[in-house]
Amino acid sequence: MTSPQTDGLFLTFEGIDGSGKSTQCRLLADHLRRSGREVVLTREPGGSPGAEEIRRLVLEGDPDRWSAETELLLFTAARRDHLERTILPALRAGKVVVCDRFADSTRMYQGLSRGDLRTTVDRLHSLMIGRDPDLTVLIDMDPATGLARAKGRQGSEERFEDFGLDLQEKMRAGFLSLAEEFADRFRVIDGNRPVDDVAAEVAATVAAALSATHPAPASEESGG
Amino acid sequence: MTSPQTDGLFLTFEGIDGSGKSTQCRLLADHLRRSGREVVLTREPGGSPGAEEIRRLVLEGDPDRWSAETELLLFTAARRDHLERTILPALRAGKVVVCDRFADSTRMYQGLSRGDLRTTVDRLHSLMIGRDPDLTVLIDMDPATGLARAKGRQGSEERFEDFGLDLQEKMRAGFLSLAEEFADRFRVIDGNRPVDDVAAEVAATVAAALSATHPAPASEESGG
Repeated sequence: MTSPQTDGLFLTFEGIDGSGKSTQCRLLADHLRRSGREVVLTREPGGSPGAEEIRRLVLEGDPDRWSAETELLLFTAARRDHLERTILPALRAGKVVVCDRFADSTRMYQGLSRGDLRTTVDRLHSLMIGRDPDLTVLIDMDPATGLARAKGRQGSEERFEDFGLDLQEKMRAGFLSLAEEFADRFRVIDGNRPVDDVAAEVAATVAAALSATHPAPASEESGG
Repeated sequence: MTSPQTDGLFLTFEGIDGSGKSTQCRLLADHLRRSGREVVLTREPGGSPGAEEIRRLVLEGDPDRWSAETELLLFTAARRDHLERTILPALRAGKVVVCDRFADSTRMYQGLSRGDLRTTVDRLHSLMIGRDPDLTVLIDMDPATGLARAKGRQGSEERFEDFGLDLQEKMRAGFLSLAEEFADRFRVIDGNRPVDDVAAEVAATVAAALSATHPAPASEESGG
Protein backbone atom coordinates (compact mmCIF):
# COMPACT_ATOMS: atom_id res chain seq x y z
CA MET A 1 0.00 0.00 0.00
CA THR A 2 2.97 2.37 0.15
CA SER A 3 3.86 2.57 -3.55
CA PRO A 4 1.66 3.22 -6.59
CA GLN A 5 0.48 0.04 -8.30
CA THR A 6 -0.20 -0.59 -11.94
CA ASP A 7 -3.11 -2.95 -11.30
CA GLY A 8 -6.31 -2.61 -9.31
CA LEU A 9 -6.88 -2.73 -5.58
CA PHE A 10 -7.62 -6.01 -3.82
CA LEU A 11 -9.85 -5.49 -0.75
CA THR A 12 -11.06 -8.25 1.53
CA PHE A 13 -13.60 -8.19 4.34
CA GLU A 14 -13.44 -10.46 7.35
CA GLY A 15 -15.58 -10.80 10.47
CA ILE A 16 -17.55 -13.21 12.61
CA ASP A 17 -20.96 -14.54 11.58
CA GLY A 18 -23.51 -11.73 11.77
CA SER A 19 -20.86 -8.99 11.76
CA GLY A 20 -22.47 -7.36 8.75
CA LYS A 21 -19.42 -7.78 6.51
CA SER A 22 -21.43 -8.96 3.51
CA THR A 23 -23.70 -5.91 3.76
CA GLN A 24 -20.63 -3.68 4.08
CA CYS A 25 -19.08 -5.32 0.99
CA ARG A 26 -22.18 -4.41 -1.03
CA LEU A 27 -22.39 -0.88 0.33
CA LEU A 28 -18.71 -0.26 -0.40
CA ALA A 29 -19.06 -1.63 -3.94
CA ASP A 30 -22.04 0.67 -4.55
CA HIS A 31 -20.15 3.66 -3.15
CA LEU A 32 -17.05 2.99 -5.25
CA ARG A 33 -19.12 2.56 -8.41
CA ARG A 34 -20.87 5.86 -7.77
CA SER A 35 -17.47 7.50 -7.55
CA GLY A 36 -16.49 6.12 -10.96
CA ARG A 37 -14.53 3.00 -10.01
CA GLU A 38 -15.01 -0.31 -11.72
CA VAL A 39 -15.70 -2.86 -8.99
CA VAL A 40 -15.89 -6.65 -8.90
CA LEU A 41 -17.78 -7.89 -5.83
CA THR A 42 -17.02 -11.50 -5.01
CA ARG A 43 -16.89 -13.90 -2.08
CA GLU A 44 -15.30 -17.04 -0.66
CA PRO A 45 -15.67 -19.92 -0.57
CA GLY A 46 -16.73 -19.78 -4.20
CA GLY A 47 -16.39 -16.76 -6.44
CA SER A 48 -15.88 -18.55 -9.78
CA PRO A 49 -17.84 -21.40 -11.41
CA GLY A 50 -15.12 -23.97 -10.66
CA ALA A 51 -14.67 -22.74 -7.11
CA GLU A 52 -18.44 -22.96 -6.55
CA GLU A 53 -18.33 -26.61 -7.62
CA ILE A 54 -15.50 -27.33 -5.22
CA ARG A 55 -17.38 -25.43 -2.50
CA ARG A 56 -20.43 -27.65 -2.98
CA LEU A 57 -18.22 -30.72 -2.77
CA VAL A 58 -16.73 -29.50 0.53
CA LEU A 59 -19.91 -28.25 2.19
CA GLU A 60 -22.39 -30.96 1.19
CA GLY A 61 -22.65 -34.26 3.01
CA ASP A 62 -21.28 -35.41 6.35
CA PRO A 63 -19.19 -32.63 7.96
CA ASP A 64 -16.61 -35.26 8.91
CA ARG A 65 -16.22 -36.65 5.43
CA TRP A 66 -13.00 -34.70 4.83
CA SER A 67 -10.05 -34.35 7.19
CA ALA A 68 -8.82 -30.86 8.04
CA GLU A 69 -5.90 -31.36 5.65
CA THR A 70 -8.04 -32.53 2.73
CA GLU A 71 -10.53 -29.72 3.30
CA LEU A 72 -7.64 -27.25 3.35
CA LEU A 73 -6.44 -28.55 -0.02
CA LEU A 74 -9.94 -28.35 -1.49
CA PHE A 75 -10.48 -24.80 -0.26
CA THR A 76 -7.05 -23.85 -1.61
CA ALA A 77 -7.98 -25.36 -5.00
CA ALA A 78 -11.19 -23.30 -4.95
CA ARG A 79 -9.22 -20.18 -3.96
CA ARG A 80 -6.69 -20.75 -6.75
CA ASP A 81 -9.51 -21.02 -9.29
CA HIS A 82 -11.20 -17.92 -7.86
CA LEU A 83 -7.92 -16.02 -7.98
CA GLU A 84 -7.14 -17.03 -11.58
CA ARG A 85 -10.60 -16.66 -13.06
CA THR A 86 -12.11 -13.75 -11.13
CA ILE A 87 -9.67 -11.77 -8.96
CA LEU A 88 -6.48 -11.48 -11.04
CA PRO A 89 -8.22 -10.68 -14.36
CA ALA A 90 -10.14 -7.88 -12.61
CA LEU A 91 -7.01 -6.51 -10.93
CA ARG A 92 -5.08 -6.61 -14.22
CA ALA A 93 -7.90 -4.57 -15.77
CA GLY A 94 -7.40 -1.96 -13.06
CA LYS A 95 -10.63 -2.72 -11.20
CA VAL A 96 -11.26 -2.73 -7.45
CA VAL A 97 -11.95 -6.25 -6.17
CA VAL A 98 -14.10 -6.43 -3.02
CA CYS A 99 -14.00 -9.97 -1.65
CA ASP A 100 -16.19 -11.25 1.20
CA ARG A 101 -13.76 -13.53 3.09
CA PHE A 102 -10.37 -14.71 1.83
CA ALA A 103 -7.34 -16.53 3.25
CA ASP A 104 -7.68 -14.94 6.71
CA SER A 105 -10.94 -16.83 7.19
CA THR A 106 -9.06 -20.06 6.52
CA ARG A 107 -6.37 -19.04 9.02
CA MET A 108 -9.00 -18.19 11.63
CA TYR A 109 -11.09 -21.37 11.21
CA GLN A 110 -8.04 -23.64 11.17
CA GLY A 111 -6.77 -21.82 14.24
CA LEU A 112 -9.98 -22.75 16.08
CA SER A 113 -10.16 -26.38 15.04
CA ARG A 114 -6.58 -27.36 14.24
CA GLY A 115 -4.19 -24.68 15.46
CA ASP A 116 -1.31 -27.06 14.77
CA LEU A 117 -1.98 -26.61 11.04
CA ARG A 118 -1.19 -22.89 11.00
CA THR A 119 2.29 -23.37 9.56
CA THR A 120 0.87 -25.71 6.93
CA VAL A 121 -1.86 -23.19 6.07
CA ASP A 122 0.70 -20.43 5.60
CA ARG A 123 3.09 -22.56 3.56
CA LEU A 124 0.29 -23.78 1.31
CA HIS A 125 -0.94 -20.19 0.83
CA SER A 126 2.56 -19.01 -0.02
CA LEU A 127 3.13 -21.91 -2.45
CA MET A 128 -0.20 -21.99 -4.30
CA ILE A 129 -1.90 -18.61 -3.83
CA GLY A 130 0.83 -16.05 -3.20
CA ARG A 131 -1.38 -12.99 -3.59
CA ASP A 132 -2.34 -11.15 -0.40
CA PRO A 133 -4.99 -8.43 -0.20
CA ASP A 134 -3.84 -4.83 -0.40
CA LEU A 135 -6.26 -4.03 2.40
CA THR A 136 -8.32 -6.20 4.75
CA VAL A 137 -11.27 -4.66 6.58
CA LEU A 138 -12.18 -6.50 9.78
CA ILE A 139 -15.72 -5.63 10.87
CA ASP A 140 -15.38 -6.12 14.62
CA MET A 141 -18.67 -7.09 16.25
CA ASP A 142 -19.89 -8.04 19.71
CA PRO A 143 -20.11 -11.86 19.59
CA ALA A 144 -23.60 -12.04 21.17
CA THR A 145 -25.02 -9.47 18.76
CA GLY A 146 -23.42 -11.22 15.81
CA LEU A 147 -24.82 -14.56 16.92
CA ALA A 148 -28.36 -13.17 17.26
CA ARG A 149 -28.14 -11.64 13.79
CA ALA A 150 -26.70 -14.78 12.22
CA LYS A 151 -29.43 -16.92 13.77
CA GLY A 152 -32.06 -14.56 12.38
CA ARG A 153 -30.90 -15.09 8.81
CA GLN A 154 -32.70 -17.43 6.46
CA GLY A 155 -30.95 -20.18 4.54
CA SER A 156 -27.49 -19.69 5.95
CA GLU A 157 -25.05 -22.34 4.86
CA GLU A 158 -22.44 -21.48 7.43
CA ARG A 159 -21.48 -24.52 9.40
CA PHE A 160 -20.33 -23.05 12.64
CA GLU A 161 -23.38 -21.05 13.60
CA ASP A 162 -24.89 -23.75 15.73
CA PHE A 163 -21.87 -23.83 17.97
CA GLY A 164 -22.99 -20.73 19.87
CA LEU A 165 -21.51 -17.82 21.73
CA ASP A 166 -18.31 -19.52 22.78
CA LEU A 167 -17.39 -20.12 19.16
CA GLN A 168 -18.30 -16.54 18.18
CA GLU A 169 -16.00 -15.26 20.93
CA LYS A 170 -13.15 -17.46 19.75
CA MET A 171 -13.71 -16.37 16.16
CA ARG A 172 -13.56 -12.71 17.18
CA ALA A 173 -10.35 -13.29 19.14
CA GLY A 174 -8.88 -15.15 16.17
CA PHE A 175 -9.60 -12.31 13.77
CA LEU A 176 -8.26 -9.68 16.17
CA SER A 177 -5.10 -11.72 16.53
CA LEU A 178 -4.69 -11.83 12.75
CA ALA A 179 -5.28 -8.06 12.61
CA GLU A 180 -2.31 -7.63 14.95
CA GLU A 181 -0.17 -10.13 13.07
CA PHE A 182 -0.84 -8.50 9.69
CA ALA A 183 -1.19 -4.93 10.97
CA ASP A 184 0.18 -3.47 7.73
CA ARG A 185 -2.86 -4.49 5.70
CA PHE A 186 -5.63 -4.93 8.36
CA ARG A 187 -7.97 -2.13 9.41
CA VAL A 188 -10.33 -2.92 12.31
CA ILE A 189 -13.69 -1.13 12.14
CA ASP A 190 -16.25 -1.15 14.95
CA GLY A 191 -19.35 -2.85 13.58
CA ASN A 192 -21.48 -2.18 16.69
CA ARG A 193 -23.04 0.94 15.18
CA PRO A 194 -25.76 1.81 12.68
CA VAL A 195 -24.97 0.29 9.29
CA ASP A 196 -24.54 3.68 7.59
CA ASP A 197 -22.02 4.82 10.19
CA VAL A 198 -19.99 1.67 9.66
CA ALA A 199 -20.25 2.09 5.88
CA ALA A 200 -18.99 5.67 6.12
CA GLU A 201 -15.93 4.60 8.08
CA VAL A 202 -15.27 1.75 5.67
CA ALA A 203 -15.51 4.15 2.73
CA ALA A 204 -13.14 6.62 4.36
CA THR A 205 -10.66 3.88 5.20
CA VAL A 206 -10.70 2.54 1.66
CA ALA A 207 -10.52 6.05 0.18
CA ALA A 208 -7.35 6.71 2.13
CA ALA A 209 -5.80 3.50 0.81
CA LEU A 210 -6.94 4.21 -2.74
CA SER A 211 -5.76 7.80 -2.82
CA ALA A 212 -2.30 6.71 -1.75
CA THR A 213 -1.94 4.08 -4.47
CA HIS A 214 -4.73 4.45 -7.05
CA PRO A 215 -5.64 8.07 -7.89
CA ALA A 216 -9.33 8.42 -8.78
CA PRO A 217 -10.37 8.48 -12.46
CA ALA A 218 -10.61 12.29 -12.83
CA SER A 219 -13.19 12.49 -15.60
CA GLU A 220 -15.70 10.25 -13.89
CA GLU A 221 -15.53 11.77 -10.42
CA SER A 222 -19.02 12.71 -9.28
CA GLY A 223 -20.82 13.43 -6.08
CA GLY A 224 -21.94 9.86 -5.46
CA MET B 1 13.88 -50.24 2.53
CA THR B 2 17.09 -50.78 4.46
CA SER B 3 15.70 -51.17 7.97
CA PRO B 4 12.87 -53.35 9.27
CA GLN B 5 9.57 -51.52 9.49
CA THR B 6 6.77 -51.93 11.95
CA ASP B 7 4.02 -51.24 9.44
CA GLY B 8 3.17 -52.77 6.07
CA LEU B 9 4.81 -52.33 2.71
CA PHE B 10 3.72 -49.59 0.34
CA LEU B 11 4.21 -50.60 -3.31
CA THR B 12 3.34 -48.43 -6.29
CA PHE B 13 3.25 -49.26 -9.99
CA GLU B 14 3.94 -46.75 -12.72
CA GLY B 15 4.12 -46.99 -16.50
CA ILE B 16 2.83 -45.52 -19.75
CA ASP B 17 -0.67 -46.21 -21.05
CA GLY B 18 -0.91 -49.81 -22.18
CA SER B 19 2.18 -50.88 -20.23
CA GLY B 20 0.21 -53.58 -18.44
CA LYS B 21 0.78 -52.09 -14.98
CA SER B 22 -2.84 -52.54 -13.87
CA THR B 23 -2.72 -56.22 -14.86
CA GLN B 24 0.59 -56.60 -13.02
CA CYS B 25 -0.90 -54.96 -9.92
CA ARG B 26 -3.67 -57.57 -9.86
CA LEU B 27 -1.33 -60.47 -10.51
CA LEU B 28 1.01 -59.33 -7.74
CA ALA B 29 -1.86 -58.91 -5.30
CA ASP B 30 -3.08 -62.45 -6.12
CA HIS B 31 0.42 -63.84 -5.69
CA LEU B 32 0.98 -62.12 -2.36
CA ARG B 33 -2.38 -63.29 -1.04
CA ARG B 34 -1.59 -66.88 -2.00
CA SER B 35 1.61 -66.59 0.00
CA GLY B 36 -0.32 -65.46 3.08
CA ARG B 37 0.00 -61.69 2.92
CA GLU B 38 -2.90 -59.37 3.51
CA VAL B 39 -3.06 -57.08 0.49
CA VAL B 40 -4.98 -53.90 -0.31
CA LEU B 41 -5.12 -53.25 -4.07
CA THR B 42 -5.91 -49.65 -4.90
CA ARG B 43 -5.34 -47.03 -7.58
CA GLU B 44 -5.03 -43.33 -8.33
CA PRO B 45 -6.61 -41.03 -9.11
CA GLY B 46 -9.29 -42.27 -6.74
CA GLY B 47 -8.84 -45.07 -4.23
CA SER B 48 -11.28 -43.85 -1.56
CA PRO B 49 -14.88 -42.62 -1.81
CA GLY B 50 -13.92 -38.97 -1.29
CA ALA B 51 -10.99 -39.22 -3.72
CA GLU B 52 -13.29 -40.76 -6.34
CA GLU B 53 -15.62 -37.78 -6.01
CA ILE B 54 -12.73 -35.37 -6.47
CA ARG B 55 -11.51 -37.47 -9.41
CA ARG B 56 -14.89 -37.13 -11.11
CA LEU B 57 -14.82 -33.39 -10.54
CA VAL B 58 -11.37 -33.17 -12.17
CA LEU B 59 -11.93 -35.51 -15.11
CA GLU B 60 -15.46 -34.57 -16.15
CA GLY B 61 -16.23 -31.57 -18.31
CA ASP B 62 -13.99 -29.37 -20.42
CA PRO B 63 -10.32 -30.47 -20.06
CA ASP B 64 -9.35 -26.78 -19.82
CA ARG B 65 -11.74 -25.98 -17.02
CA TRP B 66 -8.99 -26.18 -14.39
CA SER B 67 -5.53 -24.66 -14.58
CA ALA B 68 -2.52 -26.90 -14.00
CA GLU B 69 -2.16 -25.45 -10.50
CA THR B 70 -5.81 -25.97 -9.52
CA GLU B 71 -5.78 -29.50 -10.94
CA LEU B 72 -2.61 -30.20 -8.94
CA LEU B 73 -4.36 -29.05 -5.75
CA LEU B 74 -7.42 -31.18 -6.50
CA PHE B 75 -5.35 -34.28 -7.22
CA THR B 76 -3.36 -33.64 -4.04
CA ALA B 77 -6.63 -33.37 -2.07
CA ALA B 78 -7.72 -36.69 -3.59
CA ARG B 79 -4.33 -38.23 -2.75
CA ARG B 80 -4.50 -36.98 0.82
CA ASP B 81 -7.94 -38.54 1.26
CA HIS B 82 -6.77 -41.78 -0.35
CA LEU B 83 -3.71 -41.82 1.90
CA GLU B 84 -5.72 -41.19 5.09
CA ARG B 85 -8.68 -43.43 4.40
CA THR B 86 -7.17 -46.34 2.46
CA ILE B 87 -3.37 -46.50 2.39
CA LEU B 88 -2.26 -45.54 5.92
CA PRO B 89 -4.90 -47.63 7.77
CA ALA B 90 -3.83 -50.68 5.73
CA LEU B 91 -0.13 -50.03 6.36
CA ARG B 92 -0.74 -49.56 10.09
CA ALA B 93 -2.49 -52.93 10.10
CA GLY B 94 0.64 -54.47 8.59
CA LYS B 95 -0.83 -55.07 5.15
CA VAL B 96 0.84 -54.77 1.78
CA VAL B 97 -0.61 -51.87 -0.23
CA VAL B 98 -0.37 -52.24 -4.01
CA CYS B 99 -1.25 -48.93 -5.66
CA ASP B 100 -1.73 -48.42 -9.41
CA ARG B 101 -0.14 -44.96 -9.94
CA PHE B 102 0.81 -42.51 -7.19
CA ALA B 103 2.76 -39.25 -6.94
CA ASP B 104 5.26 -40.21 -9.67
CA SER B 105 2.42 -40.09 -12.22
CA THR B 106 1.73 -36.53 -11.14
CA ARG B 107 5.43 -35.67 -11.47
CA MET B 108 5.56 -37.26 -14.92
CA TYR B 109 2.40 -35.62 -16.30
CA GLN B 110 3.29 -32.20 -14.93
CA GLY B 111 6.76 -32.63 -16.39
CA LEU B 112 5.22 -33.08 -19.84
CA SER B 113 2.73 -30.25 -19.69
CA ARG B 114 4.18 -27.79 -17.17
CA GLY B 115 7.77 -28.72 -16.38
CA ASP B 116 8.14 -25.39 -14.56
CA LEU B 117 5.80 -26.72 -11.87
CA ARG B 118 8.11 -29.54 -10.78
CA THR B 119 9.40 -27.67 -7.72
CA THR B 120 5.82 -26.79 -6.77
CA VAL B 121 4.76 -30.43 -7.22
CA ASP B 122 7.55 -31.62 -4.95
CA ARG B 123 6.94 -28.97 -2.30
CA LEU B 124 3.22 -29.66 -2.25
CA HIS B 125 3.87 -33.40 -1.96
CA SER B 126 6.30 -32.86 0.88
CA LEU B 127 3.91 -30.49 2.69
CA MET B 128 0.60 -32.35 2.31
CA ILE B 129 1.39 -36.02 1.52
CA GLY B 130 4.80 -36.77 2.97
CA ARG B 131 4.61 -40.52 2.53
CA ASP B 132 6.66 -42.04 -0.29
CA PRO B 133 6.33 -45.63 -1.51
CA ASP B 134 8.73 -48.18 -0.10
CA LEU B 135 9.10 -49.59 -3.62
CA THR B 136 7.96 -48.33 -7.02
CA VAL B 137 7.79 -50.79 -9.93
CA LEU B 138 8.10 -49.13 -13.32
CA ILE B 139 6.77 -51.40 -16.06
CA ASP B 140 8.86 -50.20 -18.98
CA MET B 141 7.12 -50.71 -22.31
CA ASP B 142 7.78 -49.92 -25.96
CA PRO B 143 5.71 -46.76 -26.61
CA ALA B 144 4.19 -48.04 -29.88
CA THR B 145 3.13 -51.34 -28.31
CA GLY B 146 1.69 -49.53 -25.32
CA LEU B 147 -0.25 -47.16 -27.55
CA ALA B 148 -1.74 -50.00 -29.61
CA ARG B 149 -2.79 -51.79 -26.41
CA ALA B 150 -4.25 -48.67 -24.86
CA LYS B 151 -6.24 -47.88 -27.99
CA GLY B 152 -7.65 -51.39 -27.99
CA ARG B 153 -9.15 -51.00 -24.53
CA GLN B 154 -12.79 -50.23 -24.01
CA GLY B 155 -14.05 -47.31 -21.99
CA SER B 156 -10.71 -45.85 -21.05
CA GLU B 157 -10.97 -42.56 -19.18
CA GLU B 158 -7.37 -41.60 -19.66
CA ARG B 159 -7.13 -38.22 -21.23
CA PHE B 160 -3.81 -38.37 -22.93
CA GLU B 161 -4.28 -41.43 -25.13
CA ASP B 162 -5.39 -39.47 -28.16
CA PHE B 163 -2.15 -37.59 -28.26
CA GLY B 164 -0.35 -40.50 -29.91
CA LEU B 165 3.08 -41.98 -30.12
CA ASP B 166 5.00 -38.79 -29.43
CA LEU B 167 3.27 -38.44 -26.08
CA GLN B 168 3.85 -42.10 -25.21
CA GLU B 169 7.57 -41.64 -25.93
CA LYS B 170 7.73 -38.56 -23.72
CA MET B 171 5.86 -40.36 -20.94
CA ARG B 172 8.31 -43.25 -21.10
CA ALA B 173 11.28 -40.87 -20.98
CA GLY B 174 9.68 -39.04 -18.05
CA PHE B 175 9.23 -42.23 -16.04
CA LEU B 176 12.77 -43.45 -16.81
CA SER B 177 14.09 -40.10 -15.65
CA LEU B 178 12.17 -40.43 -12.37
CA ALA B 179 13.53 -43.96 -11.97
CA GLU B 180 17.04 -42.51 -12.11
CA GLU B 181 16.20 -39.65 -9.79
CA PHE B 182 14.64 -41.94 -7.17
CA ALA B 183 16.86 -44.94 -7.83
CA ASP B 184 16.66 -46.05 -4.20
CA ARG B 185 12.99 -46.99 -4.45
CA PHE B 186 12.42 -47.52 -8.21
CA ARG B 187 12.79 -50.89 -9.94
CA VAL B 188 12.49 -50.88 -13.74
CA ILE B 189 11.02 -54.07 -15.20
CA ASP B 190 10.89 -54.83 -18.93
CA GLY B 191 7.19 -55.12 -19.85
CA ASN B 192 7.86 -56.21 -23.46
CA ARG B 193 7.49 -59.89 -22.61
CA PRO B 194 4.68 -62.38 -21.97
CA VAL B 195 2.56 -61.25 -19.04
CA ASP B 196 3.55 -64.24 -16.86
CA ASP B 197 7.26 -63.57 -17.36
CA VAL B 198 6.76 -59.96 -16.31
CA ALA B 199 4.68 -61.07 -13.32
CA ALA B 200 7.40 -63.51 -12.22
CA GLU B 201 10.02 -60.76 -12.26
CA VAL B 202 7.72 -58.38 -10.39
CA ALA B 203 7.07 -61.06 -7.75
CA ALA B 204 10.78 -61.78 -7.35
CA THR B 205 11.58 -58.06 -7.06
CA VAL B 206 8.91 -57.51 -4.45
CA ALA B 207 9.90 -60.68 -2.58
CA ALA B 208 13.45 -59.37 -2.26
CA ALA B 209 12.17 -56.10 -0.84
CA LEU B 210 9.75 -57.84 1.51
CA SER B 211 12.24 -60.38 2.82
CA ALA B 212 14.63 -57.56 3.71
CA THR B 213 12.08 -55.60 5.68
CA HIS B 214 8.94 -57.68 6.28
CA PRO B 215 9.62 -61.37 7.02
CA ALA B 216 6.83 -63.61 5.73
CA PRO B 217 4.12 -64.80 8.13
CA ALA B 218 5.60 -68.24 8.89
CA SER B 219 2.43 -70.15 9.66
CA GLU B 220 0.67 -69.15 6.48
CA GLU B 221 3.52 -69.73 4.02
CA SER B 222 2.35 -72.00 1.24
CA GLY B 223 3.41 -72.88 -2.26
CA GLY B 224 1.27 -70.23 -3.96
